[in-house]
Amino acid sequence: MSVTAAKGFEASGVVAHLKSTGAKDVALVVNRGRSAAAAAVFTSNRAKANPVIWSQQVVADGQARAVVLNSGGANCFTGAFGFQTTHATAEAVAEALDVSAGDVVVCSTGLIGVGDQTFRDKVVSGARAAAGELHAEGGLDAATAIMTTDTHPKQAVVEGAGWSVGGMAKGAGMLAPGLATMLVVLTTDADLPAERLDSALRQATRLTFDRLDSDGCMSTNDTVVLLSSGESGVAPSDDEFATAVTALCADLARQLQGDAEGASHDIRIEVVGAVSEDEAVEVGRSLARSNLLMTAVFGNDPNWGRVLAAIGTTQATFDPYDVDVSFNDVRLCAKGAPDRPVTEVDMTPRALHILLDLHAGDAEATVLTNDLTHDYVHENSAYSS
Amino acid sequence: MSVTAAKGFEASGVVAHLKSTGAKDVALVVNRGRSAAAAAVFTSNRAKANPVIWSQQVVADGQARAVVLNSGGANCFTGAFGFQTTHATAEAVAEALDVSAGDVVVCSTGLIGVGDQTFRDKVVSGARAAAGELHAEGGLDAATAIMTTDTHPKQAVVEGAGWSVGGMAKGAGMLAPGLATMLVVLTTDADLPAERLDSALRQATRLTFDRLDSDGCMSTNDTVVLLSSGESGVAPSDDEFATAVTALCADLARQLQGDAEGASHDIRIEVVGAVSEDEAVEVGRSLARSNLLMTAVFGNDPNWGRVLAAIGTTQATFDPYDVDVSFNDVRLCAKGAPDRPVTEVDMTPRALHILLDLHAGDAEATVLTNDLTHDYVHENSAYSS
Repeated sequence: MSVTAAKGFEASGVVAHLKSTGAKDVALVVNRGRSAAAAAVFTSNRAKANPVIWSQQVVADGQARAVVLNSGGANCFTGAFGFQTTHATAEAVAEALDVSAGDVVVCSTGLIGVGDQTFRDKVVSGARAAAGELHAEGGLDAATAIMTTDTHPKQAVVEGAGWSVGGMAKGAGMLAPGLATMLVVLTTDADLPAERLDSALRQATRLTFDRLDSDGCMSTNDTVVLLSSGESGVAPSDDEFATAVTALCADLARQLQGDAEGASHDIRIEVVGAVSEDEAVEVGRSLARSNLLMTAVFGNDPNWGRVLAAIGTTQATFDPYDVDVSFNDVRLCAKGAPDRPVTEVDMTPRALHILLDLHAGDAEATVLTNDLTHDYVHENSAYSS
Repeated sequence: MSVTAAKGFEASGVVAHLKSTGAKDVALVVNRGRSAAAAAVFTSNRAKANPVIWSQQVVADGQARAVVLNSGGANCFTGAFGFQTTHATAEAVAEALDVSAGDVVVCSTGLIGVGDQTFRDKVVSGARAAAGELHAEGGLDAATAIMTTDTHPKQAVVEGAGWSVGGMAKGAGMLAPGLATMLVVLTTDADLPAERLDSALRQATRLTFDRLDSDGCMSTNDTVVLLSSGESGVAPSDDEFATAVTALCADLARQLQGDAEGASHDIRIEVVGAVSEDEAVEVGRSLARSNLLMTAVFGNDPNWGRVLAAIGTTQATFDPYDVDVSFNDVRLCAKGAPDRPVTEVDMTPRALHILLDLHAGDAEATVLTNDLTHDYVHENSAYSS
């Protein structure tokens, strides 16, 4: 159930002393298979970290042999020196594995602005050490090494007919559209060319990671990469493969949501009756990003008024006085007026389902988010100190 | 220094038992002057409360005689019954003052969804009682009666040459663009027709209340209304009047910022070097709305990396690698790379100045906001319980 589940992959995780805790902080995933097909999606933030700028070039040709990842520093806004650090990290892996540096994806996570000579030395030596520790059971070590404020490693696998796709993920805050502080490595032994990997990956991320909006903030470093070893010798259909990758990404996205910084509720916002899927997503996001609603949820207050106040700021097609709002299946607002009493809603479970019927069309979408809590404020005000 | 500073106005504030604390909760401001010219701006939220829908019609003809305001219930999403409550409130004031109900602006603030028969009875009898308490020194009572989570009343006055303009405001959370949970009544004895009041008011709010973005949330009830009695007999020039109204609104906006729910920092975000004022505002707002940045500020952490991550999500014209960021005049980031050490910034004062130079043009704008604190989470998670 990891990044080494599919045939042809090895992984490792080592201590490079980037984290002050002495925990593992450099991970490596290597594709030893007959194929080196790869696809990736990156943050849509225009402020991109050096590893993102590098890795976009690496996967441009649809080929990659390895992914090296570090926690303990984002290597973002660290100047030309920082980009050279990313290059040096890729070179170190390339030399150790006897592959081209141009086939080594680099991912970093941690504080922005951290990337001095000490950082470089640690990352590069960590990358070399990780290359010496590779093994077919190394998935958990790798998933552990990429954790930042995550409380546990995230892994998943989906089995196909004679092939599989597995993966690991990290990301605890800044889970926002277009991906955010999220590093995900997916591996498969399905034998598919890069363009089919790319198509399946984009379809999957659009419906999963892109709809996970924990705090509305978008990272500079997000990367989701999919490598194929081709070692199963099986080429599933596009539908079959995309379905599996989507299921895998959905599993990992739920794990990320469940471990979001300081959260006390995992909220599933389901918007139905929209005129288009895009508008349903827009409306869902407006709830996820309402600090007033998200603090109310933390206080176990099914505050449907804040739902309506939030959606009124969108451009989506609906009449605010024709909207129904339910919390955990209790309809509190019907056609913009109070319906069942709020005391009927049990807000104590961690899982919360907010259902919004816009009565404007037939489209729908679901957005996942978390509440805004004291612990969120604490973790994020103390993060860099 | 209040809503009764200008000649021709009376005001009052009474206890109508809408607030469980027994504090004043219904206010009335009446224009006794020879002119009844009026202008107003309202929330841009599409989810508008009943008093907003009513009051937009009242001021459509540029005339108003009175403004009645209640705290203790927003009368929003309360169905047809709620709209009838607003109408009944205006009728009660009209009858007591012998004016037309169509010249009575109604403003409400408090919880959405509250508006039953008890609420109506209290608001209507409160409005009648307020009409019986009107006097020329009643400004402070009125400013006190509109408070919700405000810790103190907000009033200001600006003196012109032979005329003046004064006002009161409430609003502690949900201060967001397009106005938010903000009720403001401005009064002047300058003798100007409604269209000139309107022009000055829109100019002033665009530069003041519209650039106050405390938590990114936008209310359903925001109203800023300006009444002229004409009693000074003086007609200032457009420039002179707009300058005074802008200064008045800026004063009230700073008072609102200084009393924002749970805030520990008053943040002035100054964006320079933008290609247009609109883009400068867009960039400034992206910082104001970054929970990660606003929690960092709460933790006295001058986290310039989160500034860059936030602005990278905008569509404004600039190169993220050509941006300078200063906190309290210490340049921490120059051209997208670390500059002075963060330890040089003293974050302990309540006032914080974040300066962002986009190096893309000559336009600039300032946005005011507050940090995201434990007290914000506490107040907003407990607000309705």
